[in-house]
Amino acid sequence: MSRVHNFHPGPAALPLPVLEQVQRDLLDYAGTGMSVLELSHRSAAYEQLHHQTIADIRALLGGTDEHAVLFMGGGAQMQFALVALNLLMPGAYAEYLVTGIWSETALHEARLLGEARIVWSSAAMAHTRVPAPEELRADPDAAYLHYTSNNTIVGTQYPYIPTSHGAPLVCDMSSDFLSRPVDVTRYSLIYAGAQKNVGPAGVTLVLIRHDCLERCRTGVPSTMSYAQMAAHNSLLNTPPVFAIYVVGLVAQYLLAHGGLRAAAARNQAKAARLYAAIDGSEGFYRGWAEPGSRSCMNVTFCLPTPELDARFVTESTQERLIGLAGHRRVGGIRASLYNAVSEESVEALTTFMDDFQHRAASV
Amino acid sequence: MSRVHNFHPGPAALPLPVLEQVQRDLLDYAGTGMSVLELSHRSAAYEQLHHQTIADIRALLGGTDEHAVLFMGGGAQMQFALVALNLLMPGAYAEYLVTGIWSETALHEARLLGEARIVWSSAAMAHTRVPAPEELRADPDAAYLHYTSNNTIVGTQYPYIPTSHGAPLVCDMSSDFLSRPVDVTRYSLIYAGAQKNVGPAGVTLVLIRHDCLERCRTGVPSTMSYAQMAAHNSLLNTPPVFAIYVVGLVAQYLLAHGGLRAAAARNQAKAARLYAAIDGSEGFYRGWAEPGSRSCMNVTFCLPTPELDARFVTESTQERLIGLAGHRRVGGIRASLYNAVSEESVEALTTFMDDFQHRAASV
Repeated sequence: MSRVHNFHPGPAALPLPVLEQVQRDLLDYAGTGMSVLELSHRSAAYEQLHHQTIADIRALLGGTDEHAVLFMGGGAQMQFALVALNLLMPGAYAEYLVTGIWSETALHEARLLGEARIVWSSAAMAHTRVPAPEELRADPDAAYLHYTSNNTIVGTQYPYIPTSHGAPLVCDMSSDFLSRPVDVTRYSLIYAGAQKNVGPAGVTLVLIRHDCLERCRTGVPSTMSYAQMAAHNSLLNTPPVFAIYVVGLVAQYLLAHGGLRAAAARNQAKAARLYAAIDGSEGFYRGWAEPGSRSCMNVTFCLPTPELDARFVTESTQERLIGLAGHRRVGGIRASLYNAVSEESVEALTTFMDDFQHRAASV
Repeated sequence: MSRVHNFHPGPAALPLPVLEQVQRDLLDYAGTGMSVLELSHRSAAYEQLHHQTIADIRALLGGTDEHAVLFMGGGAQMQFALVALNLLMPGAYAEYLVTGIWSETALHEARLLGEARIVWSSAAMAHTRVPAPEELRADPDAAYLHYTSNNTIVGTQYPYIPTSHGAPLVCDMSSDFLSRPVDVTRYSLIYAGAQKNVGPAGVTLVLIRHDCLERCRTGVPSTMSYAQMAAHNSLLNTPPVFAIYVVGLVAQYLLAHGGLRAAAARNQAKAARLYAAIDGSEGFYRGWAEPGSRSCMNVTFCLPTPELDARFVTESTQERLIGLAGHRRVGGIRASLYNAVSEESVEALTTFMDDFQHRAASV
């Protein structure tokens, strides 16, 4: 079987050894005589898996136990609403940093449920950068400060953790969670759809600090309540067993390969290689994000014309470089370089880019 | 590999050919050069899978297209809230038939969001039966009438569709959806967690009639809005790709094996065999549900003492008959006989029951 080079923005590439393990386990999980797809969430085998996965995620994050680790359904987009539903009390207001389409959507969903203010927005500059630390004046009295650590669509990423001046800090970390070390103690709440660096689509990870849990609204429906989900260790109702199982395998794989520090080094090297190809193209490839805000996860660029963008996508696909079309709302090219995208894939891409540029120049 | 006899109440047994197909596909889905776990939900291969799965579910249900078929996260328990959030307008009231712990929970969650009344309850009779048709007086002016078609914990099942007298009929069909033919045209809304007869945990199927969609509340967060999920054909955000893929394989398997009529015949035969063993035990095994309300899906019974119940569970597990302990809130024994539980498994169980009874009598 020949694997493609998968640059999709998510769902995305997973480590081949993880996929091979899933395949081996598929008819008989851990000697249970049944598939993990058939495994009761109340069985001892599942409970072991569930607890080990949480322990491994904690280990990757430096062993902190200040946060409950939750597994939830509905995707990160459901968290846009649940954050406000749980943390935004009547009469209070939340603050949002708007740096792309996903943070705009997060703000929009919060505003259905309460008052949410924009502290800083890159909308007027086409979301080409994140704020500099000195541009931010977060309100300590806000219910929380929400931001998006990596902007998948435009390809920007915060190189630092914003200061919330005492307000609870909430982060949509969907597209860079477990791609680099992070000081989770700075956050009241982190959420991340799994389907970028962490696992398959179908589960969202939520880390919520215990003091934040205690302040959550009551009277919220059970599956939407962080407090109730935490009280039941995400076993309030049937969790997405299989997705959690794969997240557990990915966490073990990351632990066995140097943890998040090593993952970050690999990711930085891949991104540096690709940005060097862009910057060395004499303007044929133009990066979207301002250099200080460039994402290690999603590298966005465009060619001299939309026609060349389209031809680039078509021809790269023929070379088994898959998923390079930019998001339908911004166009251009986007290469997503999550944990499981190999250096070989990036090398194949830069070789193709070089070749494409020469062919375009000689037409 | 030796497969166990899996009587878990869900997640539960899946057809072995489906599992084998998943295993074969796992590293390269449909010639894409990537795993279905890595497949973008915006790719042509996934779109084909998504649409085919919906088409196959429609085909199983008799080809009706009066309903949108949605794939949602969060489990059926999230639907307890979403039904009220979408359909219960301020000032209106909903009606509930309460026939077990899940319908009690559905009622409780609805009451967090609006007024919900009990039309009929089996609580005073320990949920041993569902109502007779003539006991029901549904209010045509209610926002909707909600009921639970099969009660997984107590082992009762409606042998008919309740009359709502014109109010929208809403059904939690989690534990018997796709186990028997059903006239879906009678329902405004059906929802079902997949992990009984339909697939693995991690996706909930929602069928909502187009006229009901038009009456849904606006201003609901996007991932909680039936109208928005339907407008985007469940591709508003990343769906649980893998779970939907397995649901699609199960649907194809059911279609290839005679559809829901044949499934119902197999399920009835299995349940009849097990109830016959209970009824023929001269009172050693006592069924929980009243005969007219007995479930084909979850057969509940108990032995003369709790000590014998416990011994039955321990010894049956040793014989690779798995998942027979009753729900922790009711005790006793429960054998779940979903679509993928084979006649051989039921035969193995009745043989064990017979043997266990003889051994208990000879102590």
